[in-house]
Amino acid sequence: MALIVHKYGGTSMGSTERIRNVARRVAKWHRAGHQMVVVPSAMSGETNRLLALAKELAPDKPGKSHGRELDALAATGEQASSALLAIALQAEGMDAVSYSGWQVPIKTNDAYTKARIESIDDARIRADLDAGKVVIVTGFQGVDPQGNITTLGRGGSDTSAVAVAAAIKAAECLIYTDVDGVYTTDPRVVPEARRLERVSFEEMLEMASMGSKVLQIRSVEFAGKYKVPLRVLSSFTPWDIDLNEEASSGTLITFEESEEMEQAVVSGIAFNRDEAKISVLGVPDKPGIAFQILGSVADANIEVDVIIQNLSKEGKTDFSFTVHRNDFQKTMDLLKSKVVPALGASDVVGDAKICKVSIVGIGMRSHVGVASRMFKSLSDEGINIQMISTSEIKTSVVIDEKYMELAVRALHREFDLDQPTDTLAA
Amino acid sequence: MALIVHKYGGTSMGSTERIRNVARRVAKWHRAGHQMVVVPSAMSGETNRLLALAKELAPDKPGKSHGRELDALAATGEQASSALLAIALQAEGMDAVSYSGWQVPIKTNDAYTKARIESIDDARIRADLDAGKVVIVTGFQGVDPQGNITTLGRGGSDTSAVAVAAAIKAAECLIYTDVDGVYTTDPRVVPEARRLERVSFEEMLEMASMGSKVLQIRSVEFAGKYKVPLRVLSSFTPWDIDLNEEASSGTLITFEESEEMEQAVVSGIAFNRDEAKISVLGVPDKPGIAFQILGSVADANIEVDVIIQNLSKEGKTDFSFTVHRNDFQKTMDLLKSKVVPALGASDVVGDAKICKVSIVGIGMRSHVGVASRMFKSLSDEGINIQMISTSEIKTSVVIDEKYMELAVRALHREFDLDQPTDTLAA
Repeated sequence: MALIVHKYGGTSMGSTERIRNVARRVAKWHRAGHQMVVVPSAMSGETNRLLALAKELAPDKPGKSHGRELDALAATGEQASSALLAIALQAEGMDAVSYSGWQVPIKTNDAYTKARIESIDDARIRADLDAGKVVIVTGFQGVDPQGNITTLGRGGSDTSAVAVAAAIKAAECLIYTDVDGVYTTDPRVVPEARRLERVSFEEMLEMASMGSKVLQIRSVEFAGKYKVPLRVLSSFTPWDIDLNEEASSGTLITFEESEEMEQAVVSGIAFNRDEAKISVLGVPDKPGIAFQILGSVADANIEVDVIIQNLSKEGKTDFSFTVHRNDFQKTMDLLKSKVVPALGASDVVGDAKICKVSIVGIGMRSHVGVASRMFKSLSDEGINIQMISTSEIKTSVVIDEKYMELAVRALHREFDLDQPTDTLAA
Repeated sequence: MALIVHKYGGTSMGSTERIRNVARRVAKWHRAGHQMVVVPSAMSGETNRLLALAKELAPDKPGKSHGRELDALAATGEQASSALLAIALQAEGMDAVSYSGWQVPIKTNDAYTKARIESIDDARIRADLDAGKVVIVTGFQGVDPQGNITTLGRGGSDTSAVAVAAAIKAAECLIYTDVDGVYTTDPRVVPEARRLERVSFEEMLEMASMGSKVLQIRSVEFAGKYKVPLRVLSSFTPWDIDLNEEASSGTLITFEESEEMEQAVVSGIAFNRDEAKISVLGVPDKPGIAFQILGSVADANIEVDVIIQNLSKEGKTDFSFTVHRNDFQKTMDLLKSKVVPALGASDVVGDAKICKVSIVGIGMRSHVGVASRMFKSLSDEGINIQMISTSEIKTSVVIDEKYMELAVRALHREFDLDQPTDTLAA
């Protein structure tokens, strides 16, 4: 018997039939002797429906405290789905109770629409668990110090689930979703992609930030910080499959590095074609230029990903970085009109048709030559590398967008991810 | 400049276009110098949609704490519409803030789905009003002493509005709805029916309890208790009509008996065809029989309206009462199987094809012969009276259902309600 948190996404809660299946699955776990806390998302489509109504009312002139009201509005989606799940569990004969964020309370700061959890009071949850109840806690929301409703941003229910699991010291937090785990890469690009049985938090962080949509990145950070074992698994298996089979399915995201296992050098290939590359050319190589360029970009609320400054030559250097493709034109305009003249740089050039491909693996820390193997593999395919960026467990390259699939497949093969191994077999 | 509460029903909040009109109307009042508190219902259809989902999940086996979860579910409708109205007001340039029941807080008992308001803290509302904000308070809901969400039952938003108005000592509580006031009787039955400019609380209470659907009866009780002037008016007038014209439209429900005015003897004709009549015959006339009969009916959760016990004859009496037509068969079965044998009564007979017609008027207190005029008028039309029940300001008769329209029209004419008068002219 253990203390377990289940989190169900919007698709899993998308209809009364699906909510009933969630209830049956949770009831199965409870009957097997586990103490259960469940964190559901809003029914799929509900949050979008609500925000569309708000948009109709304030298309272009959101007023003072707009964020506060948006949060009060959006939070109703999870409150409704949580109550519905409680009703479904009760109909299954369970004693169940649902709590909104403010009732727990889940305390956050007051950064409306993207609040951060500051503390969770576990007293009420724990008392109910001890009384044999299934406890349902709304995902995505909390309450600020002034008693206003806040939400955690898109995908925030993952973070809620992990934070609740940390607060009550759950044995494991199971994230039920519409995919059955974390893969070596996207199976739509590489049919041979395999599901990972386990992956480290560090690797998961890199993969999540590289555009893997499985988990909200903040939830992975949270899980790593509080050492909550996370499991990503499918909510579309039949609810009545064997519990032990279910409990070991999907992908376990773990903070334990198991020493017995042969560590794979590379665990996965991530990629992202939502970026664009911008280079400021002929920048006088003086202290402060990075800040002068990126400071003005940040002031315009544009997020920067890869940043590279090349070697200086004759007192001049080139400065390159990537931004989200949606921000490409805005950034180019900003640089041309203001930054280049102010810096005395010679020009700014950009390319929106690029992509970023990364190899990610804890094993890179202890293996030399992994990056070289990556570069050689790309070279063998005739793919030119435009930018390189490395971290301890990741090497990323920016290449022409048209080579993306070719590069991902080549790297997947190069690092033996096509082959089941003892440690990674699905 | 006054402190005003507006309440808008579900139809008035039924679309973003309508919510925008509500916002413009409220903004108009605020700009005219009034301090504004607004209590909106859920968007029309929303509460039914939510409860239908619950019904799908627990069609016939609602579990423990079912009511608690139903309330958490249903309360989301008003939370969403309140936030949307705040957003619409902000888009109109107003500073607006919305509060759920628990945020005010509106404290209730824990009778889920039909909770009663116990207290309202006006501090937060008052501080916002003093800061120049429009304050929106969710209707229909509150929070119990344990911090659980409660709802006040169907039509509860009227009660919320009146309770908030009482708590903040508002000058007037305006109930915007889809009718333009209280009428002498239903215009669908009597085309000559006229809108009343003002009506007393006592009369409104009798009319509301007689099936007039304009206001939730509890809200009228509340308004009478706390002496909150209430006005029922249409939300379908253009939002930009002259404020003074709007402020004097509809029907004012008042606790002030104006002495200058000639009091009409009868203010309105109410009717109700949702009832059925049941008579227990040949009941031994002993102390306690009323309790023995009605106690068992009440235990079965059946509400009784008119109750009449006839004169005893040879130690036996007949005991008659009316119930809602939906409860007719259940009540008959209960009496036949249990009560009649236990009492040693001779029989029980019932009739579902009846209706109740009432004349209501404060003036009845000071005028004699009003009931006789009613009986004569019905007799002139050849209508047989089956039961009679009277109170200080109301006389009700139970007659054959088929005579209902005929009776209502005859009485409307008899008491000169077709004629505009100085005091009642619309």
